[in-house]
Amino acid sequence: MPDSLPAHSVGITEPQQMQFEEPLELACGRVLPHYELTVETYGELNRTASNAVLICHALSGNHHAAGYHSPDDRKPGWWDAYIGPGKPIDTNRFFVVCPNNLGGCHGSTGPCSINPDTGQPWGRDFPPLRARDWVHSQARLAAKLGIGQWAAVIGGSLGGMNAMRWALEYPDRLRHCVVIASALKLSAQNIAFNEIARRAIKSDPDFCEGDYLARGKIPRQGLALARMIGHVTYLSDELMGTRFGRELRRGTFERGRDTPIEFQVESYLRYQGDSFSDHFDANTYLLMTKILDYFDLAREYGDDPVAAFRHALCKFLVVSFSSDWRFSPVRSEEIVNALVGANREVAYAAIDSEFGHDAFLLPNHRYESVFRAYMNKVAAEADQLARAE
Amino acid sequence: MPDSLPAHSVGITEPQQMQFEEPLELACGRVLPHYELTVETYGELNRTASNAVLICHALSGNHHAAGYHSPDDRKPGWWDAYIGPGKPIDTNRFFVVCPNNLGGCHGSTGPCSINPDTGQPWGRDFPPLRARDWVHSQARLAAKLGIGQWAAVIGGSLGGMNAMRWALEYPDRLRHCVVIASALKLSAQNIAFNEIARRAIKSDPDFCEGDYLARGKIPRQGLALARMIGHVTYLSDELMGTRFGRELRRGTFERGRDTPIEFQVESYLRYQGDSFSDHFDANTYLLMTKILDYFDLAREYGDDPVAAFRHALCKFLVVSFSSDWRFSPVRSEEIVNALVGANREVAYAAIDSEFGHDAFLLPNHRYESVFRAYMNKVAAEADQLARAE
Repeated sequence: MPDSLPAHSVGITEPQQMQFEEPLELACGRVLPHYELTVETYGELNRTASNAVLICHALSGNHHAAGYHSPDDRKPGWWDAYIGPGKPIDTNRFFVVCPNNLGGCHGSTGPCSINPDTGQPWGRDFPPLRARDWVHSQARLAAKLGIGQWAAVIGGSLGGMNAMRWALEYPDRLRHCVVIASALKLSAQNIAFNEIARRAIKSDPDFCEGDYLARGKIPRQGLALARMIGHVTYLSDELMGTRFGRELRRGTFERGRDTPIEFQVESYLRYQGDSFSDHFDANTYLLMTKILDYFDLAREYGDDPVAAFRHALCKFLVVSFSSDWRFSPVRSEEIVNALVGANREVAYAAIDSEFGHDAFLLPNHRYESVFRAYMNKVAAEADQLARAE
Repeated sequence: MPDSLPAHSVGITEPQQMQFEEPLELACGRVLPHYELTVETYGELNRTASNAVLICHALSGNHHAAGYHSPDDRKPGWWDAYIGPGKPIDTNRFFVVCPNNLGGCHGSTGPCSINPDTGQPWGRDFPPLRARDWVHSQARLAAKLGIGQWAAVIGGSLGGMNAMRWALEYPDRLRHCVVIASALKLSAQNIAFNEIARRAIKSDPDFCEGDYLARGKIPRQGLALARMIGHVTYLSDELMGTRFGRELRRGTFERGRDTPIEFQVESYLRYQGDSFSDHFDANTYLLMTKILDYFDLAREYGDDPVAAFRHALCKFLVVSFSSDWRFSPVRSEEIVNALVGANREVAYAAIDSEFGHDAFLLPNHRYESVFRAYMNKVAAEADQLARAE
């Protein structure tokens, strides 16, 4: 954390560990007898619980969306640019709830947790999940917090898929759904990149067919490679050109067999990969990318997204970023078109940005303005509901 | 090979092994005391040697560009669609020369060859190469074949870089330069994908820090991953969508922990990766991708491509493909603009194709027409020169 608390920060935050003892039936047919979620909340729930907002994190995210865990923290939570007092998701007005997803590796029940049947970490035996499993686990979280209806469910990327699934699974339990840089389903190219990342993890000998925890190993190389693959696809070609160009980090261009020569982009990627492998679990990465791959909003509605969205009751904000080629604006437009076709109220903002898929996490004036204006309306509605009661 | 020889095939071809005993000074400052090139040729050299065409192969290519090696061959050479009697590179009119590049793993001197100093395979000790080293080795090949001036030097992708370097290194030894789906230099994103592929190879324990041959191992997993990464980037998102969609290869969508479930695109990629690792050398892959990364046509000309092309004397055909995002049409337009700026004669064809970077290898009516028309002119010129002498 900087020496003094930055303005508009939620400050020091503390995750809570929440227990859910009722068995959860999963989409795969298996049952989790009980589970835990690690959750951060910011702001205060109002008297009528009309101001609660659910934040759904993306592939490599977690419950720590805003603020700092300690005064020594160098970086705030992953969405600190957009969550805090006076920010678009204004913690002076909203009660913000961000859980680590089921299957995650930051405290919630997942492959690193102990399997009660064996007394060993679940590892590769953790049940496969679908986005709807997250929704059901989050619905119980809402109940436990006394939230009958979310003012909004908000997510970017995989989190946007989670948010859309909310709108179909519990249509009357959210008033707004904010879907940022997401898609109705992945393209074959996206699935291909995920498959390569998974293969990188699985072919690391330290993966031990998923039993690395029990054997005291970590498939670091595989995880680092998986992250590098992901990372390249989250940045735009233009941005990489601007940021790294073809600058050499050291060494000369032409000569020298013995001086290692590399481009800046190479050392940057290596750093990203290596630091990721220090704090992310390989089985969780496999699990999460499979949830991405299998997400298909309209599948059970005859493959018709319009038919799917006819089940939704909330209003929608959809946001895309011009240089995002992993979840391109075309994918967001498919969501918007389906919502329009289903006669649902939708606002759409196509934001110019050079930051690729990562743009949804980064400061951007126009994105912030649109997001703030929309959330102001959501907050005003929440206030009105509180007064009406 | 099909039961009967297909029409317009060059038929059964046989590679030749050619020895070059004069030392070759390399761009890195080291010297290869002697080297071999494996070469295929198709058609006949005319009396005045005015009809010779050099084919420069791409990253994973080799000398076998057309025809079949035996009646049992299932597939012809990699550019059989464009080389043969009556095809754009018409073997009734041209003498076509296609060497396996220096550093390759299909017969030419490279990391799999024996290092005369040690009696062991070169492996990781093989000198790093630049595209100009290929040009110099190919110039000696031309001399040995009695070819004073190529009618055309032709290449796609990395082969296009090789061809452009020819135009600058030996301006008076080629009349035409055909540059297909190529670039003046790679983008940072391209370098990043190559770096990930290299890391995949190097982190395979069977890589043995490059000494796998001496230890009787092959880094199959790493090579397969490297190829999968490359392959995804050579195909377009649209094409992958059309070809694979999200079709499942087996298993059910929703349920079943024990039935392995996968998308068709996954098994396709695995097949591509695994079969590549059976017939390509890992050190060669590292070497070739470094040549790609370091290629920068204009670097020694004050980073000014116009200044660079002022040294060229030949005429150019440049071709790009609309869905190629690894070497996008913008990159080809940079080549064209620099040629125009340098007052060089250039024809440019931007071809509509859904096949991504791989389009340069595949049948396409418009591409074939443009290519054929251009090569007809080149052949007519060669005939004229033969008559004039």
